[in-house]
Amino acid sequence: MSEKVVFIGLGRMGSAMAQRVLEAGLNLSVFNRDAAKAQPLAALGAKVMGDPKEAIKGAGLVFTMVSDDRALLEILDGDLLKAAAPGLTHVSMSTVGVQTAEKLGQIHAPLGQTLLSCPVFGRPEAAKLGKLNLCLAGPRASKDRVMDYLSPMGKVWDFGPRPEGANAAKLAGNFMIASLIELLSEAFSLVENHGVSPQSFFELMSGSLFDAPAVHTYGGLILAGEFDRPGFLGALGAKDLTLVKDAARLSHTPMPFCSLVEDRFIRLLARGWGQRDWSAISELQREDAGLKK
Amino acid sequence: MSEKVVFIGLGRMGSAMAQRVLEAGLNLSVFNRDAAKAQPLAALGAKVMGDPKEAIKGAGLVFTMVSDDRALLEILDGDLLKAAAPGLTHVSMSTVGVQTAEKLGQIHAPLGQTLLSCPVFGRPEAAKLGKLNLCLAGPRASKDRVMDYLSPMGKVWDFGPRPEGANAAKLAGNFMIASLIELLSEAFSLVENHGVSPQSFFELMSGSLFDAPAVHTYGGLILAGEFDRPGFLGALGAKDLTLVKDAARLSHTPMPFCSLVEDRFIRLLARGWGQRDWSAISELQREDAGLKK
Repeated sequence: MSEKVVFIGLGRMGSAMAQRVLEAGLNLSVFNRDAAKAQPLAALGAKVMGDPKEAIKGAGLVFTMVSDDRALLEILDGDLLKAAAPGLTHVSMSTVGVQTAEKLGQIHAPLGQTLLSCPVFGRPEAAKLGKLNLCLAGPRASKDRVMDYLSPMGKVWDFGPRPEGANAAKLAGNFMIASLIELLSEAFSLVENHGVSPQSFFELMSGSLFDAPAVHTYGGLILAGEFDRPGFLGALGAKDLTLVKDAARLSHTPMPFCSLVEDRFIRLLARGWGQRDWSAISELQREDAGLKK
Repeated sequence: MSEKVVFIGLGRMGSAMAQRVLEAGLNLSVFNRDAAKAQPLAALGAKVMGDPKEAIKGAGLVFTMVSDDRALLEILDGDLLKAAAPGLTHVSMSTVGVQTAEKLGQIHAPLGQTLLSCPVFGRPEAAKLGKLNLCLAGPRASKDRVMDYLSPMGKVWDFGPRPEGANAAKLAGNFMIASLIELLSEAFSLVENHGVSPQSFFELMSGSLFDAPAVHTYGGLILAGEFDRPGFLGALGAKDLTLVKDAARLSHTPMPFCSLVEDRFIRLLARGWGQRDWSAISELQREDAGLKK
């Protein structure tokens, strides 16, 4: 009989990722607090679990993709995890802090369970196409064991034996994107205040030295000034920058750009912009530079 | 009789740019303080001028490519410029401050002369191949007039009617590169302090969202830790970041990233690293994060 494999957390990302696994012909049980989100996956053959206990019971492999650190630690408490099969492997795919990954590892270890961290880069559209970038870290043998499930989701990158290393890499990547939004915003406002169209400056930069997908995406959003159809919420950006700063503090890594960008996101929250796209921090820079909306 | 056209400033960049003009079959007089540098161009047909006065005398079109603001203003004083042909057009290609461009404009205007700013992106190797990116700004008719000379040097981007707009664009671009060095340095030190190889993190980022020429170039330099075969001197980076900050201050454009990166370069100078590559600021970040060389 094949092992019980569970996917917990069926938001836009989790649903798309679980769907890829099902489409690859693998068996999968799924659980989500809001059960309605599981129905499309049931149609693809997923077994829908009614509560976390039913989901975990007898599972040998659990994937989690939830909104934040608190949700992850709430679902996976130690008592619940005792119901899993011996030798459970947990693949934690949410973007959470390195401290949360360490705490999870401490919950699993005394139960003889293994934690892998595998946060991902990519938006829901990329997840649907199996085009995510997955940051995997943890014990070698466990990584080999889960590859059949991860490969349908995208490209897997190995970040070594310590699970929290993958979380640090994911956070460092989000820091790079947030910093890119800030630096483009500053550069655009400087040229605009000298009578140059930011669009023409952007064409030069994105057509030469800075010809990168992230530059095209975020430069385009900033220049369009369109932040109300969010691809990634400002509130989540704020959460992530604070997680980066926490990771930096705990590892004694001064990150002056990160401190500055975290403050931008605190301002974004203070402005009540948590539900706008995270590139809305560029509007703060425009205001600071005396530029009209 | 054809108009006298002069190229002043034959460093590594200027020599390569003048050479492209000569190879395009155009007549060119050249001047450099160190006359030896003019000899290779003489072999290509350039008329070598012995002093600035001889160079300017009767010239209808002058290109300048010198090391800094001071050198530019020293060469082009008002008395000397009276010796030019009526209606002189000056194409100022050095990376100088917007204030210097404005000052130059004020020197040319009463003499009935026209200033175009045309600073460039690209290293000497790109200049030799005619692969620079040129940021051109100034009056429309004058821009049309100089295109035959600029096209052999690379791709020309139009930044509007105000000459100093092109200088602002060039400075904004250098600010973006310097900020990129800083943000890569911070991200690398964060992952390294969590047991992740910065190289593997870099492969992910430069192979996906941040797949841009500048990222490959500077990420590679930082990871190699090789700063003693400079492509662009730390001292020039320091000069440019101060020019960006000056432009930001004068145009009432707060640029918090820029303030921070300027301080990195002040530290680089204090360390005596002005003759290293400007990406050596990444070593300051490594030191701050407790990482060994």
